Amino acid sequence: MNYDDAMRSAIAQADGVKGTTYPNPPVGAVILDRDGHIAGVGATQPAGGPHAEVVALRRAGERALGGTAVVTLEPCNHHGRTPPCVDALVAAGVATVVYAVADPNPIAAGGAKRLTNAGISVEVGVLAEDVAGGALREWLHRQRTGRPHVTWKFASSVDGRSAAADGSSQWITSEAARADVHRLRAVADAIVVGTGTVFADDPTLTARLPDGSLADRQPLRVVVGERDISQDARVLNDDSRTMVIRTRDPHEVIRALSDRTAVLLEGGPTLAGAFLRAGVVDRILAYVAPILLGGPIAAVDDVGVASIVAAQRWRYDGILRLGPDLRMSLVPASSA
Amino acid sequence: MNYDDAMRSAIAQADGVKGTTYPNPPVGAVILDRDGHIAGVGATQPAGGPHAEVVALRRAGERALGGTAVVTLEPCNHHGRTPPCVDALVAAGVATVVYAVADPNPIAAGGAKRLTNAGISVEVGVLAEDVAGGALREWLHRQRTGRPHVTWKFASSVDGRSAAADGSSQWITSEAARADVHRLRAVADAIVVGTGTVFADDPTLTARLPDGSLADRQPLRVVVGERDISQDARVLNDDSRTMVIRTRDPHEVIRALSDRTAVLLEGGPTLAGAFLRAGVVDRILAYVAPILLGGPIAAVDDVGVASIVAAQRWRYDGILRLGPDLRMSLVPASSA
Ligand SMILES: NC(=O)c1ccc[n+]([C@@H]2O[C@H](COP(=O)([O-])OP(=O)(O)OC[C@H]3O[C@@H](n4cnc5c(N)ncnc54)[C@H](OP(=O)(O)O)[C@@H]3O)[C@@H](O)[C@H]2O)c1
Ligand SMILES: NC(=O)c1ccc[n+]([C@@H]2O[C@H](COP(=O)([O-])OP(=O)(O)OC[C@H]3O[C@@H](n4cnc5c(N)ncnc54)[C@H](OP(=O)(O)O)[C@@H]3O)[C@@H](O)[C@H]2O)c1
Repeated sequence: MNYDDAMRSAIAQADGVKGTTYPNPPVGAVILDRDGHIAGVGATQPAGGPHAEVVALRRAGERALGGTAVVTLEPCNHHGRTPPCVDALVAAGVATVVYAVADPNPIAAGGAKRLTNAGISVEVGVLAEDVAGGALREWLHRQRTGRPHVTWKFASSVDGRSAAADGSSQWITSEAARADVHRLRAVADAIVVGTGTVFADDPTLTARLPDGSLADRQPLRVVVGERDISQDARVLNDDSRTMVIRTRDPHEVIRALSDRTAVLLEGGPTLAGAFLRAGVVDRILAYVAPILLGGPIAAVDDVGVASIVAAQRWRYDGILRLGPDLRMSLVPASSA
Repeated sequence: MNYDDAMRSAIAQADGVKGTTYPNPPVGAVILDRDGHIAGVGATQPAGGPHAEVVALRRAGERALGGTAVVTLEPCNHHGRTPPCVDALVAAGVATVVYAVADPNPIAAGGAKRLTNAGISVEVGVLAEDVAGGALREWLHRQRTGRPHVTWKFASSVDGRSAAADGSSQWITSEAARADVHRLRAVADAIVVGTGTVFADDPTLTARLPDGSLADRQPLRVVVGERDISQDARVLNDDSRTMVIRTRDPHEVIRALSDRTAVLLEGGPTLAGAFLRAGVVDRILAYVAPILLGGPIAAVDDVGVASIVAAQRWRYDGILRLGPDLRMSLVPASSA
């Protein structure tokens, strides 16, 4: 198996544990034996458990000797709650380590150097964009900026409406798109809405499986706004925890969530506009159904743009078909 | 060369003459010699000139003998201003004819049968969808319905706005997207706008080349609405002809253009809404820039939908990246 294919397999491992590894990054690893066959795979275990490399090495056993470790993130070089992964790789006798993305964390970094010093050959950057834009996106953002990564998700028609003229919006998008949103929720640390959405829709804001049952892991639910919401609001039920933040300042919301990594902003249009104007949105996920609605209800109202020259500029970084719908991913135009 | 590749080459031929062949369809043909090498290519010439097959056969000469003709449309079987193409194919001694789409025109049809009777083997349906959705889309629509094919084109931000709050909209989309619109215009028979767009933007509505000069072929410009437009309006200049239709009834517009094939509706939001409510739009081309604008100016206002259950349902039939922008093509959900 070549390095690209092995890295794809490591990425699949990482995707599988996204959302469960806090405060560690969701990492995937694949050990190839001398002949290039998969000897073991692994992903980061919940805090206190082994890292991806160690899981994969254990599965590979003797076959790791003279083989190759393919990892989504530079192997760590520090004693946290577990010993450094580089030690485990050296001890296992792998000949080569291939990783996608360097560790920006100064405490954990230096792994590559230690490996080279131990006579292991190191290759960096394999499928780096896929990893940096995928499973590790939010964690890398947090490492670099110290703030949680905010994804604004909205569903709309092709003509940019998030509801019909009478306010009805169930369901704009297909089952396939909604299942995708529930997967997003299951790997998010917090879901944020304004009081307006609670008053209008009384949503539960839980991550559910296709059969309607609750996902294993539920994000924190966050309601933003100065008005009181009803004690009977579904968002306050026992399915998960809920934080009510009595503010209209997006920065205050970010501060209140400063120990989280992946924040999912689900709107509505007023709160989304406030976050966009404040410049605290790091990614847009637009689920666009092939329908026309017309009318006054848009996915976002005021983004602080008076004239075309002042438009908020983003960049498409992925387009996906989800059943009949389209999912467009955008990142700030200035980002690499 | 296999049939798919040859058909792709025939499609490229057809695309090259789209808009120049009225009242004939824009067809492309490729002649492969016995060994499967390209011996000649051709496309429909302007009315009165030879059809695609004949052009390609002339170029192939002797090499057509025992070869294969690959054509986007079933070869015609009737004496119009030129003799039937099937006669030319039989006379040239081709062994096989491969075509994408059957001719729905009862007068021209029957080509396949005559070829089979002449001992030529016939294969139908190669890349049929690409052809039916591409160069032949408008002509096939006209053959089937007797009406021109209407494409509604709009440019918007990701949040569905066609201008910023102050009305400024130059330019929402990139040079690559605008060049694509000019290509669309150059192959359209008519471009339609409302008086509102003339008052607001004073557009020339011409097809221009990337260097700003006029394309060889200019569509008829059509202005719809009851108000008088200024005699100085650019849309009335000498670059092309202009038809002013003093009505607010889209059906009347369609009737006035009943001898055309490809109609391009460029809006604005009021006229687009009227066409959509009247059910006379056959395709939507949305050029979506990766920007956010917010504010009150949407690409379309009222499409006659009060509630989500009554949404106008379409289907994506193609997504294209154009520079930084996205072009989404939609057709009615009910269409095959
Ligand atoms: N299509 C989608 O993806 C989607 C997603 C979510 C919601 N929705 C729809 O959105 C509609 C609700 O719209 P909405 O705009 O009222 O919901 P919202 O944005 O969730 O809530 C608006 C409220 O948030 C508070 N708020 C917080 N920060 C603010 C700020 N900086 N400026 C102004 N207000 C701020 C205000 O409440 P206080 O007065 O309490 O301060 C405001 O009334 C519903 O119909 C829902 O279905 C659609
Ligand atoms: N982003 C894009 O793709 C795009 C494309 C084109 C235009 N635009 C923008 O659109 C804006 C102009 O908007 P608009 O809506 O005024 O333009 P419009 O739709 O081109 O023109 C509206 C006018 O069309 C006439 N009309 C024809 N049929 C009608 C009907 N069934 N119902 C009502 N009116 C009908 C009316 O004029 P009478 O009173 O004369 O009957 C009406 O005022 C400009 O700012 C322009 O930049 C954007």
